[in-house]
Parts: sequence; structure tokens; C-alpha cells
Amino acid sequence: MLVHFELICRDRESHARRGRFRTTHGVVETPVFMPVGTQATVKSLTPQEVEDLGARILLGNTYHLYLRPGAERIARLGGLHQFMGWKGAILTDSGGFQVFSLAKIRTIEEEGVSFQSHIDGSRHVITPEKSVEIQEALGSDIAMCFDECTPYPVTYAYAKASMERTVRWARRCLEAHGREDQALFGIVQGSTFLDLRRACLEQLAALDLPGYAIGSLSVGEPKEEMLAVLENVAPLLPADKPRYLMGVGTPEDLVEGVRCGVDMFDCVMPTRNARNGMLFTSWGSIQIKNARYADDPRPIEDGCGCYTCRHFSRAYLRHLFMARELLAYRLNTLHNLHYYLGLMEQIRHSLEAGAFAEWRRRFYANRDGGGTSD
Amino acid sequence: MLVHFELICRDRESHARRGRFRTTHGVVETPVFMPVGTQATVKSLTPQEVEDLGARILLGNTYHLYLRPGAERIARLGGLHQFMGWKGAILTDSGGFQVFSLAKIRTIEEEGVSFQSHIDGSRHVITPEKSVEIQEALGSDIAMCFDECTPYPVTYAYAKASMERTVRWARRCLEAHGREDQALFGIVQGSTFLDLRRACLEQLAALDLPGYAIGSLSVGEPKEEMLAVLENVAPLLPADKPRYLMGVGTPEDLVEGVRCGVDMFDCVMPTRNARNGMLFTSWGSIQIKNARYADDPRPIEDGCGCYTCRHFSRAYLRHLFMARELLAYRLNTLHNLHYYLGLMEQIRHSLEAGAFAEWRRRFYANRDGGGTSD
Repeated sequence: MLVHFELICRDRESHARRGRFRTTHGVVETPVFMPVGTQATVKSLTPQEVEDLGARILLGNTYHLYLRPGAERIARLGGLHQFMGWKGAILTDSGGFQVFSLAKIRTIEEEGVSFQSHIDGSRHVITPEKSVEIQEALGSDIAMCFDECTPYPVTYAYAKASMERTVRWARRCLEAHGREDQALFGIVQGSTFLDLRRACLEQLAALDLPGYAIGSLSVGEPKEEMLAVLENVAPLLPADKPRYLMGVGTPEDLVEGVRCGVDMFDCVMPTRNARNGMLFTSWGSIQIKNARYADDPRPIEDGCGCYTCRHFSRAYLRHLFMARELLAYRLNTLHNLHYYLGLMEQIRHSLEAGAFAEWRRRFYANRDGGGTSD
Repeated sequence: MLVHFELICRDRESHARRGRFRTTHGVVETPVFMPVGTQATVKSLTPQEVEDLGARILLGNTYHLYLRPGAERIARLGGLHQFMGWKGAILTDSGGFQVFSLAKIRTIEEEGVSFQSHIDGSRHVITPEKSVEIQEALGSDIAMCFDECTPYPVTYAYAKASMERTVRWARRCLEAHGREDQALFGIVQGSTFLDLRRACLEQLAALDLPGYAIGSLSVGEPKEEMLAVLENVAPLLPADKPRYLMGVGTPEDLVEGVRCGVDMFDCVMPTRNARNGMLFTSWGSIQIKNARYADDPRPIEDGCGCYTCRHFSRAYLRHLFMARELLAYRLNTLHNLHYYLGLMEQIRHSLEAGAFAEWRRRFYANRDGGGTSD
């Protein structure tokens, strides 16, 4: 199984680390942010633009692609990379998260999950074996073990039973998995219960998977609870393999994830918020629809090197957004992804320079009054 | 007043002509197609993409820009070119067409037109003087005289009264117009009544405007009626000035317009139809949502040099369209504009080579069975 992880250096004052891993679709420098390409497209952008932004790995959603256009169809058309014209690496999630958040009438049994499509109500069953089969058909570089994403809050008893099933499902995924150019990562569950998280981690580590993720965070729990799991679990994940924090989060979450030793992140926040008119800057975020920007000739952020900031004013972006012009979603997405990918690049440089703590201090100082907030 | 029109050559067998004109924002080779940038954006595309497609002049809509974000605001922000980041030339329509097709409760009087905004119901009056004032504030390279776009059908009496008012309005526009880096074109009206069209043309020609347009075609009249106006009116427009056929049309309409001596065209068809999934090819058009394309690995048209055809299959485009992905609208728009702009480039080359009639014969032969139609 591929994904050769190489640890380049560690931070002296935290669990943060600088690494890289190889896939059959290129090298990925970590810590890394993976833009979300839900339905075989990073919404509004071409693959060329995503590459030009510096992204080297995307996330694709197994649930969505399975339902539409179908994994077998994508396989017939040459696999997900060729289908969507993306030359870099792809990680597919297991389908679990969307089954639990989007699908209707789901039944969880030991065998797997029955559900109805959110698109047309058609009935489906995804088992661990089916999830692996779909991901092998898609041909992603990294596949994820099928898991239950527990909501917040859940009882200890439910979290324990769910976690134990997720471990059993991981064993079945490993058994079913055969594609040698694809790595299969495990997902640590256990909600906010640290002993359950540790127990899950130990059992999954015994499977010697090529990478490990933390799931079911940023699902509604208080920030302190998330941070407690991060601080207590991330550093315990096998140090010689990539560590992936699923579906998280804000720029601050990414910085804290790195501090706790996480290597990989994905989140819809930069892309989804862009489409809602929320734009990230080094001092916080702005809502472009705010009337104060109607006559503002400045770019979103002075000195930002993205296409949007190099060519357009806040006034123009506000106009496009108010007029619901398609270009609004593109220009906002370009800016936000540039911000997220640039943030990770800064973090990587700071780690190489042995200056992550100092970089992190400045990151927060900027947000506490270094610029105008909205 | 700018716009220096130069006639390069004429077709021997028709009224077709190859020319060019200069504006303060570059040279425009004719016959030319102008993509429509209604609200200060060619829907879904960046100005860079529009330029890369080969467009050198865009159309902006006075009515839309006046209502949102407002012409004075655009003027404060440096004018329409700077506001939208477009380096090429811009032609603005007079606002007349949208007042008559989009606005609510309109009253036409000698002074001008009262109407309610289609966005928020606010009340406005546009007079010939106001239309010129707005277009001068926008700073387009070519402004259009305020006119009434008559619907089809209308009575002879109405068409006559309306045409005569349009002529009086044109005189007021010329009187009001002062911006020296902007050309003011007249619009020939008269519905499908050839004597009214000719009378209008004669009176407007006396004003010695730097360019002339034919308005109120492709508004519901039978194709033969449109062609009759084109064949009888276009060749009579002053030969030493650009001739512009407003809001027309299909690829065939463009070819026939050129044959009748038209130099400039604009139409929402390539961009709007793209967003509805209708894609143009040399043999006709296809509806990308058609199930037959679900597994089709071919590009929209073999040999097409557009970004979409160079990178993506019909199967992928169909998937994006069915999933209502934003990228669908972009990729379809890129292809259709490439087709329209490429068509005009072919026409220009055929005119330079003295081979327009032969080119036109092949154009129609291709459509009569040269490829698969949908």
C-alpha cells in the first residue's frame, strides 16, 4: 500500500511536525489542507485553477459520487482523476459522514447502513466492503475505512458501542481492500470520551494501517471539548504515519491541529463560506455583502497575491455578490482557498525555520487588532 | 467622436465586408461578435478568460448597471472598464430594450419612459438625456441612442409613431452627448415595415452619427420577416460606418447578417444557452443533459480547441450539469463563446481570402448532415 510518509522535522515546543508523503499522483508536503471536491469538482473552479492555487491533494465524497454519477461509471471513464481532470492526489472519505448527515431514513446494523438517497429517495446499503469497493472503483490515492460519525452529544454507552463497531468495520475494510496503488486509512472514533478515543486508537494501530484520522470532531461540540480530544489523541496517533483531522475547520482550528501534531486537514469552510460571501483575511473575516463595501476600491486584503485581490475591488465583489452573479462565487472561492493554502504554506515554512511558536504568536496577534474586522 | 471605421475589403457576391474600428480601448476587427456582460460580468467568466477567448469588445447593459450598482458609483470607481477589470472596448445599450422587456408598469411619453425596477419596484424615469448621462458615467466606448424597442407584432400606426419618437429621441441624445472618447450610435426602428425602416434610416443618417444599428429584430417575428428587414435595410446603412445588428442571434443569423453587410453583433444566446446546457457545434447543437452522453468519453466537438473540449468529456459535463455544479455553467460558456468567436474569425478569414460564399456553403453543408445532431 502506498503513501510513504517522511518526517522532515519536528517543532521543539509542540507536537507540530513538517513532513511529506508520496502517492502515485505526486508528492504532498505536510501539514496540508485538502480542498473539498464533493461531486468531482471543487465548486466553481477548474482543476487548473486549483493546481495554480498550490493544492496537491483534494478530497472527493464517496457518498455523492456513488449516488451520482456512480462509481462504476467513473471507473469506466478512467477513474476519478481522469473523469475530473485532476492530476494531483485524491483522498476519498468513506461515505459514512454523508450517510449520517444527508441521507434519509438510515438503519445502522452490524452489517452496514441502509439509507435513502437525498437526491431521489432510492434505497441503498453501504457496508464496509461496499465502501471499499466504491473507493477502489473511484481510484483515489487514499481511501478511508467505513465508520460511523457519531453526532454530539451522545451517551457514553452509545459512543462505546459505535466505536467498537467502527473498529470491527475497519478490520472488514482492511480485509476487503486490495488495490495496491491506494492507501487505506483508519478513523479514530469515540466522541468526546478520551478513554474511548484511546481504546479505539490502540485497536486500530494494531492493524498497521498506512495513516490514521480523527473523526467526529467539529460536529457541534464546544471548542474546548474539541481541543481536549485534539491535545490528548492526536499526539498518540502513530508518529511514522500521516495524521488526518477530518472536516476541520477554521484557520485557528488548523493552527491548533498542527500544534497537536496533525498533518492533514479538509474542510468545506473556505469554499462554502466563499459562496456565502464570507472572506478570510489575516485579521479575521469580512462579509462582502456589508453596505460599507459598496464604494470600497480596495482589494479584500492589501498585499494578497490571489487573482481576485490583484484585479478586483471590494465594491466590485459586493456588486457581483448582491447581483448573485456566478463570478462572485468563483472570485470569492479563489481568494478563500488562496488564504487557506497560503496559511498552510506559512506554517510549513515556520516549521522548517524552527519558528512555529513565534509564527503562531503573530498569527493570533494579527487577529487581535492587527487590522479592521467586520 | 471616436470609432474610426476602416473598410478592408468587400465580398464580390454579397454585401459582406471585412473592416476594423479603433476605440480608446483597442482595435476591433469586424465582422465581430460582442459577448454580453449584462451586470459588469460575462456570466461565470473572468475578464482574463473573455480576453483569452479572443473577445475585444463586450456589451454592457445600461438598465441593469443604472439600477445596480448605479452609474454614479461605477463612475466614482473609475468607470465600467476599471470596475469590471476589462481592458478591451465596451458598448453600452441605451437601456431601452430592458425597460420594455424587464421593468414593471412603464409609461412611454414624449419626454421619456417611467418604470419600476424589476429588482425592488423603485420608480425611475429614463429620458434620452438621462440615458446619455448614464452611458457617459459608465464610460463605454460606444453608447447607443435611447430608443423604443417595439414588440412584434405592432400595428403600422404604432410602429410609425414609435419610430418617429425614436428619431426625435436620437436628436436629443446627440444634443446631450458630450463625451469625446465615446461614440454615439443611432438605432433604426420601424418594426417589420420596410418603408418605416427606410424613413427612419434616412432621418438618422442625416445626423451623421459614427455608427448605426438595426433594433427590434429577433423579438418574435418569423425568420423570413427578419431576413426581409436585414436584406432590405442593412445594405442601406451608411457604408463608411459600422453597422450593428442588435440582440441577434443564432449562428445562422450571424452568417446571414454578415451577408447583408452587418459588422457587429451581440446576443445572449451563446452564454444563456450554455447555462441551460445547450452547446453549439459545427453540425448543430446538443443538449448535454441528454442521457446518451452519460458514458460518452468524447469532447463536445472533436478538434475543438477550447479549454472545455481539451480537458473534459461529455460524460463529465453532463454530470456537472445534472448536479447543478457551478463549473458546468463556466465550462459550457467557455465552449459556446469559443464557438461564436471562432465562427466570426472564420468569417473574417474567408472575407480576406475572397471566399465568403464558399465558406457559407460549407457552413450550411456541415449542418445538413456533417455530424451527429441532437
